[in-house]
Amino acid sequence: MKDISDRIQEIPLSPIRKLTPLADEAKSRGIKVYHLNIGQPDIHTPEEGMDAMRKIDRKVLEYSPSQGFLSLRQRISEYYADFGMKYSPDEIIVTTGASEAVLFSFITCMDPGDEIITTEPTYANYLSFAAAAGVKVVPITTSIDNGFALPPAERFEELITDRTRAILICNPNNPSGSLYSREEMEMLAEIVKRHGIFLFADEVYREFVYDGMDFFSAGHLEGVDENVVIFDSMSKRFSECGIRIGAVITKNKAVAEGFLKLAQARLSPPLIGQIVAEASFSAGHAYLDPIAKEYRHRRNVLVECLQNIPGIKVIRPQGAFYVIASLPVENAEDFCSWCLSDFSDNGETVMMAPASGFYITPGLGLSEVRIAYVLNAADLQRATAILGKALQQYNSTRC
Amino acid sequence: MKDISDRIQEIPLSPIRKLTPLADEAKSRGIKVYHLNIGQPDIHTPEEGMDAMRKIDRKVLEYSPSQGFLSLRQRISEYYADFGMKYSPDEIIVTTGASEAVLFSFITCMDPGDEIITTEPTYANYLSFAAAAGVKVVPITTSIDNGFALPPAERFEELITDRTRAILICNPNNPSGSLYSREEMEMLAEIVKRHGIFLFADEVYREFVYDGMDFFSAGHLEGVDENVVIFDSMSKRFSECGIRIGAVITKNKAVAEGFLKLAQARLSPPLIGQIVAEASFSAGHAYLDPIAKEYRHRRNVLVECLQNIPGIKVIRPQGAFYVIASLPVENAEDFCSWCLSDFSDNGETVMMAPASGFYITPGLGLSEVRIAYVLNAADLQRATAILGKALQQYNSTRC
Repeated sequence: MKDISDRIQEIPLSPIRKLTPLADEAKSRGIKVYHLNIGQPDIHTPEEGMDAMRKIDRKVLEYSPSQGFLSLRQRISEYYADFGMKYSPDEIIVTTGASEAVLFSFITCMDPGDEIITTEPTYANYLSFAAAAGVKVVPITTSIDNGFALPPAERFEELITDRTRAILICNPNNPSGSLYSREEMEMLAEIVKRHGIFLFADEVYREFVYDGMDFFSAGHLEGVDENVVIFDSMSKRFSECGIRIGAVITKNKAVAEGFLKLAQARLSPPLIGQIVAEASFSAGHAYLDPIAKEYRHRRNVLVECLQNIPGIKVIRPQGAFYVIASLPVENAEDFCSWCLSDFSDNGETVMMAPASGFYITPGLGLSEVRIAYVLNAADLQRATAILGKALQQYNSTRC
Repeated sequence: MKDISDRIQEIPLSPIRKLTPLADEAKSRGIKVYHLNIGQPDIHTPEEGMDAMRKIDRKVLEYSPSQGFLSLRQRISEYYADFGMKYSPDEIIVTTGASEAVLFSFITCMDPGDEIITTEPTYANYLSFAAAAGVKVVPITTSIDNGFALPPAERFEELITDRTRAILICNPNNPSGSLYSREEMEMLAEIVKRHGIFLFADEVYREFVYDGMDFFSAGHLEGVDENVVIFDSMSKRFSECGIRIGAVITKNKAVAEGFLKLAQARLSPPLIGQIVAEASFSAGHAYLDPIAKEYRHRRNVLVECLQNIPGIKVIRPQGAFYVIASLPVENAEDFCSWCLSDFSDNGETVMMAPASGFYITPGLGLSEVRIAYVLNAADLQRATAILGKALQQYNSTRC
């Protein structure tokens, strides 16, 4: 019997997937596990969205247009206008989550063997989608030592070959929480323009920006309309990850038309999800602003608690809802496993995502973990207290 | 600026996509268009599914497991048991429609440059997904002259190379409506076993089998557990195409694990759709049986009406809800365009899918159209009457 494809065999099992059985086993022993490892917000979905779903009075849950409902695309267009970006409904294609936007954009813009440059640490699923598309990911390393800022243009230039087709950023960044400045974005614009390559900008955390910082979108850049392809999603914004509604947004007509061929092949994005998403926009700032404030509070609590644990290095991220923390351990993956299999404090422990899975270059990030602050502040305080005790015990048994 | 990928440029625009603007234009002139071109059933979604959706009382529409809810997979497992097939919930992965099952299976089982053999006429979207996966489609031609039956084993053997990784069938077949016999299926089993290749079986029309014929699934085959990968969908079965819930079903553990890597990358299938799908199964035979009977009636009406039109060749298909008809025209695509742009009878006309888009070999199917019988019998009668008049007028102006 033939093997499965090489490209799929090459996708590594993520560290989280390896930890999940350990977490399940800990729970079966009656241990409470604080999940610092996942990006599933605990915030309620807007009532407007839930109501629209319950009021659906169709007799047939039928296909919707492959590009997505025009009314939803108009709503997204207005949302972008509020951010000072002009995208017509024709420049928007509704997708099944940002995931589909990423995979289909990779396939639309790159052939097998082409190269894409992205920052590491990176969103691990980009790597799976690149493998699926047969595309090689070339990492450009960012570091906790300078707040995961973008490296200078020269570093990007060194990595560009005749196979390079795109630069991919996530802004605000998952997993680092870093927010790219206008200057960093304009540097990228110059590079992609000079080389005639695409700039893929995953901006699903756009609403989660703190400390009065301005969000500068790839859509704000001038002179690179043909290069920019934005990935968006309703999942985090409206805490409705399960509806699977995202979007790809671009003024590049060839990309939009090519992408639409794939969108037509998959027939349509989820019908009910689109109805929920469109209604959710009505929740507006009255919904979004308190959430951003709540996440900012959680971030402050989390970072302060982490800074009080001896040996932990952490920066105060300005966006998204993740922190990368460098722990005083050699192998964070081993430590995270140990927290689940060999440690508990008063019947409780923590699950974190080892950051090694977010790096492409072997050997990087071995001491780091990603912590999501999607728990309330009290839980974050308790979870970090557990983390501190765990580190103490783990290191004392090893010295 | 770099071009989009070669693989996407190579996907042809489907004939239907070319006709859509003409249909829109006809409607804007006040003409009623009978849509014989699409596979969107007019049947009502089960009330059980609609109710489950309206009763969702979650506060957060959150991610579901990447593999799909266990309760839904158990329900699908029971459904297969009713067909005499043993598939455990672990052998089932819930997908975002059968579309995702197809694309992800192609990527999981084949590398760029590999080959897949499939019957033509074929479901056109297979070709888009194969292009997306970088896979070459090798056609094996079936013909209206013998009811689109599978060619003998020797014809398949001639097409198998060292790059062949799979044979793909759709059974009952879209677009031909043909149903493969046990003997045809066992022939395929021998071939895939001998060569150690995959048998992809798209069985989304499994419930639509007429005239007391038995449906013989790829899952009924013996000795090819490692080869068989079934694509399934709730879309047509429960007339809920918009919920985007399908499944991939296989006993091949490597395929299931590889597929799950992609499923994990895209996070989760639609949450609400899964809830609707699971409840829809409760509708059971009380829902499904009258629908199969209704489609059988429509097929009989349609085929009889078509047979009464001079020059049309058509067979009585035994499954799905499509008929391929050979028309007395040289270029069916031109005729279909003309029906929309230059013809109407009493303010009404028809839209059909030119079959050339379902053939891979250039020049085949030029006189054929696919007609979907998802309209009620009265509408089908009127639509075929229009078709007869259109043919007469089209040919009289050309002779």
